[in-house]
Amino acid sequence: MKKMGTVPIFHLRKRLFEALKEDIGSGDITSEALISERSVSSAIFLAKENGILCGLPFALEALRLLDPNLQWEIQRFDGASLEPGVTIARITGSTRAILSGERVALNILCRLSGIATLTAKFVKLVQGTGAKILDTRKTTPLWRDLEKYAVRTGGGTNHRMGLYDMVLVKDNHIRACGGIREALRKARERVRPGVKVEIEVTTSLQFQEALKEQADWIMLDNMPVEEMSRCAKAGKGKAILEASGGINEKNIRAVAETGVDFVSLGALTHSVKALDISLELEEN
Amino acid sequence: MKKMGTVPIFHLRKRLFEALKEDIGSGDITSEALISERSVSSAIFLAKENGILCGLPFALEALRLLDPNLQWEIQRFDGASLEPGVTIARITGSTRAILSGERVALNILCRLSGIATLTAKFVKLVQGTGAKILDTRKTTPLWRDLEKYAVRTGGGTNHRMGLYDMVLVKDNHIRACGGIREALRKARERVRPGVKVEIEVTTSLQFQEALKEQADWIMLDNMPVEEMSRCAKAGKGKAILEASGGINEKNIRAVAETGVDFVSLGALTHSVKALDISLELEEN
Amino acid sequence: MKKMGTVPIFHLRKRLFEALKEDIGSGDITSEALISERSVSSAIFLAKENGILCGLPFALEALRLLDPNLQWEIQRFDGASLEPGVTIARITGSTRAILSGERVALNILCRLSGIATLTAKFVKLVQGTGAKILDTRKTTPLWRDLEKYAVRTGGGTNHRMGLYDMVLVKDNHIRACGGIREALRKARERVRPGVKVEIEVTTSLQFQEALKEQADWIMLDNMPVEEMSRCAKAGKGKAILEASGGINEKNIRAVAETGVDFVSLGALTHSVKALDISLELEEN
Amino acid sequence: MKKMGTVPIFHLRKRLFEALKEDIGSGDITSEALISERSVSSAIFLAKENGILCGLPFALEALRLLDPNLQWEIQRFDGASLEPGVTIARITGSTRAILSGERVALNILCRLSGIATLTAKFVKLVQGTGAKILDTRKTTPLWRDLEKYAVRTGGGTNHRMGLYDMVLVKDNHIRACGGIREALRKARERVRPGVKVEIEVTTSLQFQEALKEQADWIMLDNMPVEEMSRCAKAGKGKAILEASGGINEKNIRAVAETGVDFVSLGALTHSVKALDISLELEEN
Amino acid sequence: MKKMGTVPIFHLRKRLFEALKEDIGSGDITSEALISERSVSSAIFLAKENGILCGLPFALEALRLLDPNLQWEIQRFDGASLEPGVTIARITGSTRAILSGERVALNILCRLSGIATLTAKFVKLVQGTGAKILDTRKTTPLWRDLEKYAVRTGGGTNHRMGLYDMVLVKDNHIRACGGIREALRKARERVRPGVKVEIEVTTSLQFQEALKEQADWIMLDNMPVEEMSRCAKAGKGKAILEASGGINEKNIRAVAETGVDFVSLGALTHSVKALDISLELEEN
Amino acid sequence: MKKMGTVPIFHLRKRLFEALKEDIGSGDITSEALISERSVSSAIFLAKENGILCGLPFALEALRLLDPNLQWEIQRFDGASLEPGVTIARITGSTRAILSGERVALNILCRLSGIATLTAKFVKLVQGTGAKILDTRKTTPLWRDLEKYAVRTGGGTNHRMGLYDMVLVKDNHIRACGGIREALRKARERVRPGVKVEIEVTTSLQFQEALKEQADWIMLDNMPVEEMSRCAKAGKGKAILEASGGINEKNIRAVAETGVDFVSLGALTHSVKALDISLELEEN
Repeated sequence: MKKMGTVPIFHLRKRLFEALKEDIGSGDITSEALISERSVSSAIFLAKENGILCGLPFALEALRLLDPNLQWEIQRFDGASLEPGVTIARITGSTRAILSGERVALNILCRLSGIATLTAKFVKLVQGTGAKILDTRKTTPLWRDLEKYAVRTGGGTNHRMGLYDMVLVKDNHIRACGGIREALRKARERVRPGVKVEIEVTTSLQFQEALKEQADWIMLDNMPVEEMSRCAKAGKGKAILEASGGINEKNIRAVAETGVDFVSLGALTHSVKALDISLELEEN
Repeated sequence: MKKMGTVPIFHLRKRLFEALKEDIGSGDITSEALISERSVSSAIFLAKENGILCGLPFALEALRLLDPNLQWEIQRFDGASLEPGVTIARITGSTRAILSGERVALNILCRLSGIATLTAKFVKLVQGTGAKILDTRKTTPLWRDLEKYAVRTGGGTNHRMGLYDMVLVKDNHIRACGGIREALRKARERVRPGVKVEIEVTTSLQFQEALKEQADWIMLDNMPVEEMSRCAKAGKGKAILEASGGINEKNIRAVAETGVDFVSLGALTHSVKALDISLELEEN
Repeated sequence: MKKMGTVPIFHLRKRLFEALKEDIGSGDITSEALISERSVSSAIFLAKENGILCGLPFALEALRLLDPNLQWEIQRFDGASLEPGVTIARITGSTRAILSGERVALNILCRLSGIATLTAKFVKLVQGTGAKILDTRKTTPLWRDLEKYAVRTGGGTNHRMGLYDMVLVKDNHIRACGGIREALRKARERVRPGVKVEIEVTTSLQFQEALKEQADWIMLDNMPVEEMSRCAKAGKGKAILEASGGINEKNIRAVAETGVDFVSLGALTHSVKALDISLELEEN
Repeated sequence: MKKMGTVPIFHLRKRLFEALKEDIGSGDITSEALISERSVSSAIFLAKENGILCGLPFALEALRLLDPNLQWEIQRFDGASLEPGVTIARITGSTRAILSGERVALNILCRLSGIATLTAKFVKLVQGTGAKILDTRKTTPLWRDLEKYAVRTGGGTNHRMGLYDMVLVKDNHIRACGGIREALRKARERVRPGVKVEIEVTTSLQFQEALKEQADWIMLDNMPVEEMSRCAKAGKGKAILEASGGINEKNIRAVAETGVDFVSLGALTHSVKALDISLELEEN
Repeated sequence: MKKMGTVPIFHLRKRLFEALKEDIGSGDITSEALISERSVSSAIFLAKENGILCGLPFALEALRLLDPNLQWEIQRFDGASLEPGVTIARITGSTRAILSGERVALNILCRLSGIATLTAKFVKLVQGTGAKILDTRKTTPLWRDLEKYAVRTGGGTNHRMGLYDMVLVKDNHIRACGGIREALRKARERVRPGVKVEIEVTTSLQFQEALKEQADWIMLDNMPVEEMSRCAKAGKGKAILEASGGINEKNIRAVAETGVDFVSLGALTHSVKALDISLELEEN
Repeated sequence: MKKMGTVPIFHLRKRLFEALKEDIGSGDITSEALISERSVSSAIFLAKENGILCGLPFALEALRLLDPNLQWEIQRFDGASLEPGVTIARITGSTRAILSGERVALNILCRLSGIATLTAKFVKLVQGTGAKILDTRKTTPLWRDLEKYAVRTGGGTNHRMGLYDMVLVKDNHIRACGGIREALRKARERVRPGVKVEIEVTTSLQFQEALKEQADWIMLDNMPVEEMSRCAKAGKGKAILEASGGINEKNIRAVAETGVDFVSLGALTHSVKALDISLELEEN
């Protein structure tokens, strides 16, 4: 999937503002005590390890909320590869604003870069198989749009954005409905026509039934690789096929080679190592 | 540090509501299509791996925002050890509400339990040394209070809550002020008397100066273990001493044995593996 | 489309609260001056003309925000046919609350019932043709979810909920992209796989191109009925077909008989006559 | 009533922002996929039928929230007469912003212009009688200020803005108070002196009592035209007189000729046909 | 003016919540450390000096936001006279909630009681003259409704609630309009008919002009007492007359005896001594 | 304490906006009727009595929210001494904006200047004693940050900002804990190490116990001056000492001379006389 541009700042300003308030509260007493209100500084965002950059526009916007006149020169854009020592961007503005906003800016930047970096790693592992890396709804509450953007930045593909834009019939729904057939028929009948319908299956038998009921998309959940291969062969061209459950660095290649269209991983967003990036004030 | 109770729900309701809106958006179309509005179910929160439970009251509150009549029996409280197969709590309420709120509830519960589990691991590693595990401000924006609670739940101690409740003079501040002495004097002079003053030092020389200027608290940042030991000896009883920077599972014991009061780790909150917990609908 | 239940109150409370504040402002000075704070009354929602009821739960919730102890007996549920003199529901509660909330409750109820009534009229006009009535995004800002619910209540089908859950390539997009083929290919390439792609065409030629590029859904915009018939024949089973543009009570039957799957009408929500319903206090 | 200028943007920004969020949600996936982030276009607001323009500043502001650098040239101002083919304004800015905000801008513009057009029609029908057209509180929740502005734009006069700025004693209040005399006395005694007091009457007898108790304003509700004439004669110069209830295009002239000061119509805002205006992207 | 009941809690909850957040921030660390989450206590609101009680329902509501199960017995209602040692109310609930909410509850209660007490003092000073005490818009931002309620509770009368519910033409407006006559005519012509028009005059000459132009209400601003007397005689029955400017405990009686209807004082709300009321935990 | 700069506008904008909405509501009908939308004026903030200026940046910001192009020249900055007739600042901008925002701007400015003026008076009374003036949490809900800034502007020192940044063990807490020793030990054990611990004592005995338990800060509440002197002597250098309770203009010098570090006064913020400042439109 080609990148679709960043999340519009329009959607973000309120959350960034709340994030700054969370940290600054009744005032950044250190900066207010030590730094003159009129002091102006330059600073750089500096990469400290290898990875993929993601979230720079949001980090800059957080700082700009504190200093509307902040200036910047960007040297690496979202999606760029980083290595230790690379200068990502240079900013100039109110020293107090920079120091007061630094932590919020970095907390966002390091986490999103961590997600992009992890995604890129998995993308590389499946390269050449035709399968694509898919994310899940296992994101940090209130930051899903940014985290799904980080997945795209790392070369991954987004699954549905939320409960509102696609049907995904899971185990629990199937049981409550009396079976795959009933669930898929109800879904078709009641859901608006613009919506695709996915269903989760765990066996070949269930897979056949889902295929017969013309599910748009079938998730093969925690299925052995061989069974997955058979399903992939049977379903190719009839439905979108997604492998899911228990997938990791070791087994992902084998899963991707079964012929599924997508491999989905919750870990892309729920178990992330922040990428090490720092903000360094420059000597005047 | 003894646990101080959970974060009052009073502080949380708005964020939980926004988190549910983020996921549900214009409607959980799967549940609305497949599940009767009147259907009632029981479900359990089920542990899938070893760890420390944290965040259950918030997960339950998220579900209760969707079904104000939700009932629950709690079998494991926050702070309890989990192992695969342990039932954490059983809930009964609107099936739609449970299925629509499940992901938000789990996203919170799994992350906080991951933080508590990671903290407990480090707490164990320093056991007997007298040093305590301290968190940082490297938390997820908008969720700091919960993440700091998770650190407490895992046996860690909280550093300052934000920029507003303690002075921490860092490298950049020192430079902008013309030195440690100047920074500490300005801080004393201008900050309200209720506030403690911490300063970051990287060398013994700086440490001596900070001690002389009667800093309440000194952070030894990225200091070699031997140098740290000497500082710890010199500073014992005169200031709170905190080791910080580049600390990991391998070196933490050695650091803790230097005699510092605290060892702080950003990774406790910025690089967390979610603990595997699921919500399982029970057969009627 | 079977009704999917009402919009959950969860999504509505804030807007109802703001709507009450808009009307009540610094206080309902008439009721505060004339009615005792302790006075309790019964009142009925009374139909004054023929139509389809819609919005009762929201009207009741608005009143309940002013009197949390409000009691009600519902005699007609959303979707019911009304005629002059029919009692819809009887409420009992604080007289002040009832009188202060009456107008907001009725403004919602009368408009939504107007939409349901208008939709039902069009649904009846196409009965037996196989075509379904579809709404648009021409809704009242901030009330789209309720208005789309009213369309469902009247027997109509919802098109996409917003710009986020389906692609609809319109005239302007086509031009900006360099043609139908380019637009559809870009959409496929860049949009997440869970999303259906619709395109607007105005001629048979464009229709052929859209069909060839495998659009999921094609809108025949302002097309003469005969041309529409030919397209419908050619496209049946290959794409969802929607007639749109300049459709009214007089020509809708002919349009529906062309074999299209859907007929969409902006007027369902942008040009609505409120249904006449009143709230009558009962003598004690 | 002379026009008092538009509703200050100050009051509107939050609602426009929420309206955009309602439509755009997690992203305008069509524009993001098809239109370059850097593309700039011109577009015109184009009238498609006869009517009175209203709401242009709000439509432009909605678009400016998405593109702060949007430029415009206005060719018709609010209150101007429109006919098919008239260019209302030309805008230039981010193509994505224009396409993403188009629907919200038009939904506001077409409804407000519809209200102004309908009001102007009634104003014309009573021309020369001395009576003025008055609106009611039967407005769309959350948009009353704009809708009352649209009534002014069409040449109408505003009744009270809400429950807070005038007393209007209605049928239900009278009953609960034990009569017109009691209600008016209580109102005088308890309401702050800056507030005018209106009362609704349905018979000449009630009218006499209201006049005797020195109501500032008397509403003649659903009264036969001859009885209204007698009341108007009796009350001229003693109180403001308002005709209300069951008034339409056919009977309004006769009502206006009775000598009342105002004729009020709920339909001005509750049963409106949107005026047909479109936004057309111009070829580059 | 008879009391019109308290400000509905409906209008207040959000502000009380924000006020609690302002004080509690990231947590009431004292109570959390010292008081068990399960501890329950009784406490009393205790008067420490003479005055008029005002604001009890809001103080209780603030506490109830922290403990929804809080119980209370009210012994003195708003408007009651207090003397040192009087128990106002006894509450029982979560000890933590009571201690965490105490300061916000008292800050509201002591200020509103201070306003009511001050108002009552001025009301007494003009007793028997026929003049009434009027407040102004010189209130604490965000708390005007409560402060105006406190004025009513002390026996005063409210002037307009804000800029929206009455016209008050002041010095600056007159100058900008070219004179009293022009200002009053423009106001009549452009303002909706439900609104009363007041004008500020400083000389007899201006007063005559305002009277001639039929102002509903005339404010005699900073006028010598004798001149005020002459105006009052001339204007009686033709307009509402209000004395304003530089009025204090010493001169108010003389001003009131001129025959004006109202005497307005900014000090009622802008220069208030808080009434001393405390919250005392009872021994278990 | 040296001034730490003003409260960042970042923290204020939302409250200023709400304050303007409170006053302007559905519109400033006087200015809209009388003043042309295009009229531009100059105006000055004019001191009418002696005092200390405080709050000018917030007053200007309130006006700027109504006219983003407002210009100003500041002639007196916060902290300056005022006397009658002094021009504080000259502003130029939309006449409507200036008149609509005047009252909110002045309500803030006059109150904050009143606080600064009162504080300065007490600061002067203790001059030379070494004691400093301290504020309390008895502030106006929702405006604490500004009021504490006004105390600083008047030369006072801030106590804790809220319940979150310092422990203050009061009478009620001690009782609930079983004594001073228990309370202080629990506090030490459970509160994060960055926080100082204050305790309130009323007798020498309690004072000795608090000292022994190494409280950081001890409040001598309502203690006779001689006893206070003895405590001050005993505690000097071991803990911060604060005198509190029943302190006024008459006794403050004696209290300050006991040798305590701080004297705290609730009256600084709870019983304030607004400073008389007006806004005067200049002749064009």
